[in-house]
Amino acid sequence: MSRFWSDHVAGLVPYTPGEQPKVADLLKLNTNENPYGPSPQALKAMKEAADGRLRLYPDPEAAALREAIAAYHGVASAQVFVGNGSDEVLAHVFHGLFLRGGRPLLMPDITYSFYPTYCRLYGIPCETVALRDDFALDPQDYVGGQGRGAAGIIFANPNAPTGMALDLDAVAGICRANPDTVVVVDEAYVDFGAESAVALLPRHDNLLVVHTLSKSRSLAGLRVGYAMGSADLIEGLRRIKDSFNSYPLDMLAQAGALAAIQDKAYFDKTRQAIMRSRDQLAVDLAQMGFDVLPSMANFVFARHRSSDAVKLAAALRERHILVRHFALPRIDQYLRITIGTDADCARLCAALAEILGKAQ
Amino acid sequence: MSRFWSDHVAGLVPYTPGEQPKVADLLKLNTNENPYGPSPQALKAMKEAADGRLRLYPDPEAAALREAIAAYHGVASAQVFVGNGSDEVLAHVFHGLFLRGGRPLLMPDITYSFYPTYCRLYGIPCETVALRDDFALDPQDYVGGQGRGAAGIIFANPNAPTGMALDLDAVAGICRANPDTVVVVDEAYVDFGAESAVALLPRHDNLLVVHTLSKSRSLAGLRVGYAMGSADLIEGLRRIKDSFNSYPLDMLAQAGALAAIQDKAYFDKTRQAIMRSRDQLAVDLAQMGFDVLPSMANFVFARHRSSDAVKLAAALRERHILVRHFALPRIDQYLRITIGTDADCARLCAALAEILGKAQ
Repeated sequence: MSRFWSDHVAGLVPYTPGEQPKVADLLKLNTNENPYGPSPQALKAMKEAADGRLRLYPDPEAAALREAIAAYHGVASAQVFVGNGSDEVLAHVFHGLFLRGGRPLLMPDITYSFYPTYCRLYGIPCETVALRDDFALDPQDYVGGQGRGAAGIIFANPNAPTGMALDLDAVAGICRANPDTVVVVDEAYVDFGAESAVALLPRHDNLLVVHTLSKSRSLAGLRVGYAMGSADLIEGLRRIKDSFNSYPLDMLAQAGALAAIQDKAYFDKTRQAIMRSRDQLAVDLAQMGFDVLPSMANFVFARHRSSDAVKLAAALRERHILVRHFALPRIDQYLRITIGTDADCARLCAALAEILGKAQ
Repeated sequence: MSRFWSDHVAGLVPYTPGEQPKVADLLKLNTNENPYGPSPQALKAMKEAADGRLRLYPDPEAAALREAIAAYHGVASAQVFVGNGSDEVLAHVFHGLFLRGGRPLLMPDITYSFYPTYCRLYGIPCETVALRDDFALDPQDYVGGQGRGAAGIIFANPNAPTGMALDLDAVAGICRANPDTVVVVDEAYVDFGAESAVALLPRHDNLLVVHTLSKSRSLAGLRVGYAMGSADLIEGLRRIKDSFNSYPLDMLAQAGALAAIQDKAYFDKTRQAIMRSRDQLAVDLAQMGFDVLPSMANFVFARHRSSDAVKLAAALRERHILVRHFALPRIDQYLRITIGTDADCARLCAALAEILGKAQ
């Protein structure tokens, strides 16, 4: 605690991102990065943008990028908000849409762990709703949200770190039951097999859908995310952004993101490869004694039936393989394992076979 | 006003950045961009960074960049905080250091117009202190700040949009008189001839100095800014950042900024060219009947003794030359004119001579 900090700073509990160590032959399966590089078109666009024009400010509205995103999803560009990674977009969502006179925000008890951090940053009461025992989200738990005076509802779909997806009828039901409450669906992982709620936007002006280019577009290093919703919701976010930082996306990020969105062939090829690898890995892990939750993401969430998760993670780390473990109630025996290439998955399985063989 | 916005959103008054129109032969002297491109070393570093590594998250701490900045300024890297442009750094300063139980923030009445916007965003009362009639900041006006219960003090040095600089003794006096109050000196324009308060950091743990790469490093399009101060102040900012967005600087921005900081030869050559052009332009404008404030920035702030500022700006715009006019009390007869190349300055002067000749 410092005498120079604002009143709320001492009470903050910052989000802990997955570690990024620099070790040769390291297999990073801990932060859901894409094993394939970004689109060659995106790399070309960024190299071309690295020129004397960088002396000028970038387009504060990122108009060309927003139009490309709008065209891809079949919405209007006034329905698109872009930011410095979906984490920044989410921060503005919490500040601009969920800070409502002390009313609580509803979210699952097991979900993206940055949500409670944003709540503390802006002083929003956080009301967690337990997932079912099988980690499925029960839409009925959110149907009375508006009646309970909720400031908003947020969940990830597919959920993190479970990877489990909710179908669109369930999402629509939550929107319909809370017409005056903003419902935010964080679809960071949607491109790996789940259905996007973008299809619901024409019928639900209280729905906001958040995407990132960090996962399925393989651009975690570029920091671009976006939100789609009614022009009303987007305008609320724009007002926050223009009171915070007029130019959140640099010229290189705007150029690279635009080219990545437009290279649909590369996007489809790489995400399909990841889905195939995931489904095979789930089978292989099950054969080694893991319970694997049904995943629609670029990771699996798995628990071994007899080996302790912390010990397994440590043994993998000794073999220079990182996976993510969360020391949290209900999930502390699970490991979240990012889907790599088939070769990455094979290395992981060989290491696990060795570790589990020794343990017996 | 939307039923979906947070309580404070309707009352926000977003900052209005200078316009960025796309017109051929346009001479943009309205946003203080650098007429020379970025360092060739910086461009090379960005092109090289645009590769497959972008699939990975960037270093959330930007350690290499922070070390380069620390080495350049002779401070420790724990004294350096980096962000997505100095606008984002300032936003975190307001949120993390100035939000103190409704106490007011002191700032000059004429200064960077984003400061009151941040105050509205975070609900910080803003107490403006009038500059003297000659637009100089009187340090005595801030010497009672702490006694007046100020949450903090912020000013730009050189000031914007006047370009006038305060000497280091005056800055030190303000820090010394308010030992328990954070004093933020925004030095966006310091490299064009003023003295940096970085030299005062060893003696004042309440001082925070903010820099940007947008002006003297010619990287407005890349969005990199930084703050330097005691480790205590930096830790307060880091806690806010890690509760907002773990990765504010993408890989390309980190690589380009690092190379730009290290290319001191190019930096010195271009900033000296701009200072020479500025001093010549000030003489030329005076000869055409302008009162020109003494500038230590990459712009001049000037008032014509007989021609109306709004009409002059409009006449320049007809000739595809943009300058910045602020419709604000005390300064509504001034134009803020960015220093371009000598050729840019000559084109401006020729246009002004024509406009003023016609007006007579």
